[in-house]
Amino acid sequence: MTQHRATLTEVARRAGVSPTTASFVMTGRTDMRISVETRDRVLRVAHELNYRPNLMARSLRSKVTQTIALISDTIATEQYAGQIVYGSLAAAAERRHLLFICETEGDPVLEERLINDLLDRQVDGFIYATMYTRRARVPRSLRGQRLVLLNCAAGREIPAVVPDEVGAGRTAAQALIDAGHRDGIHLVGERAPHLIAGSERIQGIEAALGAAGVSLAGSVDCAWWPESAYEAMAAFLAAGHLPKALICMNDRVALGAYQALQEAGLGIPEDVSVVSFDDSDLATWLRPQLTSVALPHQWLGRRAVEILLGEAEHEGVERLPMPLRHRSSVASPRGRSGRDG
Amino acid sequence: MTQHRATLTEVARRAGVSPTTASFVMTGRTDMRISVETRDRVLRVAHELNYRPNLMARSLRSKVTQTIALISDTIATEQYAGQIVYGSLAAAAERRHLLFICETEGDPVLEERLINDLLDRQVDGFIYATMYTRRARVPRSLRGQRLVLLNCAAGREIPAVVPDEVGAGRTAAQALIDAGHRDGIHLVGERAPHLIAGSERIQGIEAALGAAGVSLAGSVDCAWWPESAYEAMAAFLAAGHLPKALICMNDRVALGAYQALQEAGLGIPEDVSVVSFDDSDLATWLRPQLTSVALPHQWLGRRAVEILLGEAEHEGVERLPMPLRHRSSVASPRGRSGRDG
Repeated sequence: MTQHRATLTEVARRAGVSPTTASFVMTGRTDMRISVETRDRVLRVAHELNYRPNLMARSLRSKVTQTIALISDTIATEQYAGQIVYGSLAAAAERRHLLFICETEGDPVLEERLINDLLDRQVDGFIYATMYTRRARVPRSLRGQRLVLLNCAAGREIPAVVPDEVGAGRTAAQALIDAGHRDGIHLVGERAPHLIAGSERIQGIEAALGAAGVSLAGSVDCAWWPESAYEAMAAFLAAGHLPKALICMNDRVALGAYQALQEAGLGIPEDVSVVSFDDSDLATWLRPQLTSVALPHQWLGRRAVEILLGEAEHEGVERLPMPLRHRSSVASPRGRSGRDG
Repeated sequence: MTQHRATLTEVARRAGVSPTTASFVMTGRTDMRISVETRDRVLRVAHELNYRPNLMARSLRSKVTQTIALISDTIATEQYAGQIVYGSLAAAAERRHLLFICETEGDPVLEERLINDLLDRQVDGFIYATMYTRRARVPRSLRGQRLVLLNCAAGREIPAVVPDEVGAGRTAAQALIDAGHRDGIHLVGERAPHLIAGSERIQGIEAALGAAGVSLAGSVDCAWWPESAYEAMAAFLAAGHLPKALICMNDRVALGAYQALQEAGLGIPEDVSVVSFDDSDLATWLRPQLTSVALPHQWLGRRAVEILLGEAEHEGVERLPMPLRHRSSVASPRGRSGRDG
């Protein structure tokens, strides 16, 4: 079914030159004297025969295949993953590299096999990505390979790009402080020790609040999902608490908080301000639109490719800034004394 | 930086055999008499030296690289795309194939270049995907290649997998009929001629309603996005219409409709039933959870790989069923006479 592709020998025969001459023309070498007429004839014949250099044979000599592998634990289950893929694809395409994508689902046996299959195809380098920011154990088979870690880190020796989650926490808290909030600020979302994003965000939040002489009034514990956030926030409000501002650990948590606040007849932002993290599609779909600190996923993908291909200076772990997207969910607090302070 | 990989010659030298003998052992050929001891020694040395056959050199002879390319117009901007990638990756990995992923963003020049770069790397076949179901113009450079179309079609000669959107429309309408709805059923979302999914869904909806002797009471025109749906539905309700059931063209439209209904004090499903298409994450995040007809994107990815690798029988365009996910947004209509009938 595959179309016939002309070989260099066929081009040479049709152009009436030796294969060596044809090869010199096609690779643009100038260290052999070739007339302009001959060169033109070879190029014309190559075009007519739809000749394309056999990149794989050339890779055998040059040991460069212009292919990169992106290995990730999850590609599909996380909607943000698409942004990482998109950034990597675009940066690779601009540099005329192709991208293999592999998903391990966290299975170390599958991971090992995929890495070996990629090594068999002599990829030029690897991007090893995790969907949730964490410390990574680099697979043994990747040691000694050109490698950039994405969204994870494994010490200063291996270049890594991660989001600046501490800075993001500072940014979210500062948005409330700038709007005049001093009390009744609650955190929504569990503090799970394995979620580096969570603990770093909280670290930044506490730093920014502390610098303004403010502290958290409390927190509402829930999983980072809408339903859990709705239930926890509904119970919190039913118990008589009346927060003035919420810092939600991600946009999905904010969705659940919105649902509980609106059901309780509380207005956003006039009664309760809400700020969040991720800046996913949801942030623009909610009413009112949600002020959220953006994950730099597309940029992480781009940056990893740039570092991998040796274009960017890097020193150990590079933290990419997470910018605030101002929308309509944060306002000045009302001049009221909430039951929580 | 790349680790040294032992060559077959080094294995042969270390094992004290000729390269030919080493090659015969490593490729499992039995047409040359080799003693068990020699075979074992070669295999042990190969293991010690971490020898791996050069798959690229082998591909030059066999013309099979065990790589597939997935070319798509958009990978990142559509959250559903992740499911296509996931299904294709899993099916490819099970068959020991690796997947190149390319995004063209609909740019024909970039598309042409990417296809040529993939041909240079001698991929075994192509999956050509579009994010919205449509008729595709197959790029000239893909003609004669092993090819499966995904989410698009270009005549019966080229195998294609698409969602059964007409069946989906029937399923959505039937869910309302089965709940007892006979009148006040409205469609929400524009009928754009370029959106095949839309016109096919409507075709199925009208067929199922017609078979039950029912017809649409009207429709609310809006783009397939939350904000547009919210505004159109809010205006529709403000004009005094009181629908009994909505068929939303996708889950995002349903989100906007929910917002307008809830703001108007209408209960879902007690006042208005809502059924939708896509079965995205949103469907489970909304309150009440949304009954939605699922896009089979993961299955489309799997199926395309199976057909590409010659495992599945196919006849022209294969339509994959879209199953209904029953949740809590559809109920029997109240015994009232809505203003719309």
